[in-house]
Parts: sequence; structure tokens; C-alpha cells
Amino acid sequence: MSLLVVGSIAFDTIQTPRGRAERVLGGSASYFSVVASHFTSPRLVGVVGEDFPEEHIATFKNHNIPLEGLERKPGNTFFWEGEYHADLNSRTTKAIQLGVFEHFTPVLPASYRDSKYVFLANSSPETQAGVLDQMDNPELVVADTMDFWIQSQKDALLKLLPRLDGLMLNDSEALLLSGETNLVRAGHAVRAMGPKFVILKKGEHGAMLFSDDGVFVVPAYPTAKVEDPTGAGDSFAGGIMACLAVDGTHLHGRLRRAMAYGTVVASLTVEDFGLRRLINTSRAEIDHRLQAYREMLSF
Amino acid sequence: MSLLVVGSIAFDTIQTPRGRAERVLGGSASYFSVVASHFTSPRLVGVVGEDFPEEHIATFKNHNIPLEGLERKPGNTFFWEGEYHADLNSRTTKAIQLGVFEHFTPVLPASYRDSKYVFLANSSPETQAGVLDQMDNPELVVADTMDFWIQSQKDALLKLLPRLDGLMLNDSEALLLSGETNLVRAGHAVRAMGPKFVILKKGEHGAMLFSDDGVFVVPAYPTAKVEDPTGAGDSFAGGIMACLAVDGTHLHGRLRRAMAYGTVVASLTVEDFGLRRLINTSRAEIDHRLQAYREMLSF
Repeated sequence: MSLLVVGSIAFDTIQTPRGRAERVLGGSASYFSVVASHFTSPRLVGVVGEDFPEEHIATFKNHNIPLEGLERKPGNTFFWEGEYHADLNSRTTKAIQLGVFEHFTPVLPASYRDSKYVFLANSSPETQAGVLDQMDNPELVVADTMDFWIQSQKDALLKLLPRLDGLMLNDSEALLLSGETNLVRAGHAVRAMGPKFVILKKGEHGAMLFSDDGVFVVPAYPTAKVEDPTGAGDSFAGGIMACLAVDGTHLHGRLRRAMAYGTVVASLTVEDFGLRRLINTSRAEIDHRLQAYREMLSF
Repeated sequence: MSLLVVGSIAFDTIQTPRGRAERVLGGSASYFSVVASHFTSPRLVGVVGEDFPEEHIATFKNHNIPLEGLERKPGNTFFWEGEYHADLNSRTTKAIQLGVFEHFTPVLPASYRDSKYVFLANSSPETQAGVLDQMDNPELVVADTMDFWIQSQKDALLKLLPRLDGLMLNDSEALLLSGETNLVRAGHAVRAMGPKFVILKKGEHGAMLFSDDGVFVVPAYPTAKVEDPTGAGDSFAGGIMACLAVDGTHLHGRLRRAMAYGTVVASLTVEDFGLRRLINTSRAEIDHRLQAYREMLSF
């Protein structure tokens, strides 16, 4: 089934206790689509500036990611610089230059409007709704959001939620949105706002799924080699959505298996800076780690 | 197989955002042994004061916990008062009166020295070593510890570790003891200090096991009804040790299954104040929740 992602494409400068990377390819849509490319050919919609090099275009091409939805505009590509703290669980943004992303209003290529699986990466709820308005008849729409939108555009977000099949957000954001102090109650409360299912991301502690089938909790895959957490959440989303898009079975078991795939690809992402580890992996390696993960969880 | 626990017996006054309990029965050995009583008849070694009421003695008796190792001394029973913060993940100790526990040097009844499974609940490493010195030939010894001992009696703790089969500690304590910033590396590092396996407790985020078989991670059972987290860690230990004591199969699968049982009983503990939920449960309910937990983790 066709899979569409609308999100950011960026240059990231990343400092962690394990090293530094300068102006590497990043952004939610980049992580998502490189992950998804190991499962299917994802349709990418995003914007870059005049400074975006052929080298990165080639990265997308090499991963079977069509470029029809990649808009190039006068100005600079979105730039982000961040520094992670010692425990790698929190970070400080050192610089942010939105560039061409600041006034980006995604316009889907006509041939993308029939996409069946849609991921609306983190952006304003109005922008996300604007993408949905362009879709013909999607089967499964999942959006990501963040504390900034919960605080500054809550009404627009609440209006968007009933239009979604799934919402992904961090644990702290779910507490903020729901006003709860317990994650389980928060997940149920956010689901009552409209989305058919809710996925709470807990970073190194894994994730929780709230759906018709109740609550499903997965731990993170315990990798000892955490170099750079950037993109873990978008990789997780890419693994989930790609797995759903290629898996034709009933939603129940699909969501759980998709969460497991998402967990495994996110654990790969953090093992090197930027997209490096994701580029240097294969479907075989992902499946191999999935099997190790499944064995780890059986008792 | 015989199971021994040496630990504290206390009166707890507990305030949480969900309510308050005054001078209820608490202490590591109480939680541990009431949990374990649903699986086997645990041998309890601890001390109480003259103020310890018949009602609590009856609680132990009703749970098939023999009282041979329950010492009664002049003075008051250990008293602790704590208040949990809004998210229930942290707490402030409001009062602590060690009473008869302050100078407690456990002396095992002669008939307990042949115990095969031994849990040394949190106390000074020297006290824990003193208990081990009294054992004939235990099969499996697990100890709990805490930041206070890591900071104040690190040498004694390091001397104890090679004598243990397993060590249980909180995630932050594992980071402190190892000097690592990543939990996976911390677990491996602590294990290299001597114990055959290490269990890292992560509270609402579950637990990790480090052993010859690699790393095994379990999420917490996602209960929405968290009333009082007191005793969750000791309940977890009680479920693990009791499960190991009654399960005759090879250690590999046993430890994982035991962790699952520990997780499930800990989730029951937090659903009511003090020991109330543990007293009002049954082996059938525990097994039922274990099955739900197993299904939750399969994909």
C-alpha cells in the first residue's frame, strides 16, 4: 500500500558526549523515509533550500525514495544545532534557522493524493489538517505532535485529533495534553479526544499503545551503543507506518508487530550519528534484530 | 525449595496524591514475604518492638509465614513517614525512627541456616554479609542495595558482590555504582563487579536483567490505578525469589519468568495502600494477570 510522509528535511549539527556531527542530513521526513525505504518505497513531501547538495538527493535516490514531492525553494534549508546532555535523555537547542521551512505549506503532487497510509510528522496542527484536506481517501492517518503545539495551538490540535487514526507523542506531552499525572490514564484520555489509537513514546524506556485492544507496552531494544538519539522518534514512526503499509492482516496484531519493528529500527538509529546507521543497515539486519527482540520478550 | 528473607518490618505513614494511610504494616520483609506467601511458605527474619500489634502478627500467620525468625525487642518498631510527589515517581521522607531496627544484627534460627533461596533486603553490606556467614550452603543468594550504601560503604559492598548470585538495585543506583551514563553499560559493569546476574529496577518503566544470557528487558504492567508505590520494589523481589524457589527448571528461562511474576505482583501492590492489595489477591489472580502480561508482550 502507498505510504506518504510529510515533514521536515534539515541540516543537523549534533553534539553528544560520544562525538559531534556537522550539518548532516536530518529532519523528521528524512529519518522516516530512509527507515521506511527498507520496507517499501515511501512518498516524501518536504522542502529544501538552494544549499541542499546533490549528495543528499543521491541518498534519497539510492533508497528508492521518489523525489516528486521534494520542493526546492530560494533560501536555505532548515538548520538545527543541538547538544545532548550527559545521560542523552535531554538536549539543548543551540541554534535554529527555519529557512525555507518557515513558510512551507505542503502541496501534494496530484499522484500522491491517493496515498493510503499517511504520516503527518511534527508540524502545526493547521499544516497537518491542510495536508489531510488534500487526500482522496486515506486508509490510515497518523500524526506526530509536540508540547509547542499543545501549548500554542491547542484548539487546532483538538480539532485535528478526531480526523486521525493514530496520534504519536512523547510521554511528557501526553501528560500535558491530558492534564493527567499517570501515563496509562493519560493515554486513555488522549484517545478519548478522537484518535482511534495513541502511541506514547518514552525514549529509552520504550513506548505504549492505547487502542481498542487495551494497553500494549514495549520496552526499548537495549542497545549499549547510544551515540546520537536524534531521529529515534521519527525512525520509530517510520518503522511502524512502513510495517503497517506492507502488512495486509487485521489491525489488531499489525499494530503490535509494527510497534516492535519501530522499536528495533529506532535502536539502530541511535547507534551512530545522523542517518549513518540507518543507511548502513538492511532489511535482513532489521529482521534479525526483531527476532532477538521477540526472544527477549518471551518467558 | 526453602526461601529466606532478611529485612525490615515497619510502620509506614504514607501520603500520596490519591490518599493517606496511617501507621500501616510495611517494611521490605513484610512486602516480600506476603508476596512470596502466594507461592510458598517464606522464612522471615526481622525485628519488631513492643508496640507491634497482634493484628499484624495475625497477618503473617494468615499468610502461612512462620514466625520463628520474628524477633521482638524492647523499644519501638521501625517507623517511616513519606509523602509522594504528584507523579508518584519520587517521594520525600517526612520522618524516620529506626527504633529496634537501628542495632538489629540478624541471627538466623538454627533451622533456617539450610535455606536454599536467600533474599537479603536492603540493609548495610556488612549486615548482609553477616547473614551470609550464617548460611550452610545456599543455592541462590540475591541482595538489594541503595545509594546510601553505595556512597557510605562502597568497600564493604564491593566485597559482598562476588558472594552474590544476584544484585537488585534501582537504575540511578546502578549509574552511581558503575559511573556509567547508559543503563545497558551500567548493568554490564555492575555484573562485572561479581554478581552472576544484575536486575535494574526502573519503577514505572519496568526492569532489566543482565545475565549470562544477555540483556532481558521487561516493561511494567500498565495498571491505571496507582494509589501507593510503597513496597513495589520489595514485592518485585518477592515475586522473583518465590517463583525461583518453586520452579525447578534451568536458570535461563526461570529468571525471565520470575521477572514477569515479579512485575505482575508489583503492579498489584501499587493498586492500593500498604499491603492491602497483596492481602486481597490470590495465586489465581496473579496467574491471570501474568497471562494478560504475556499476551501483551507477544507480537
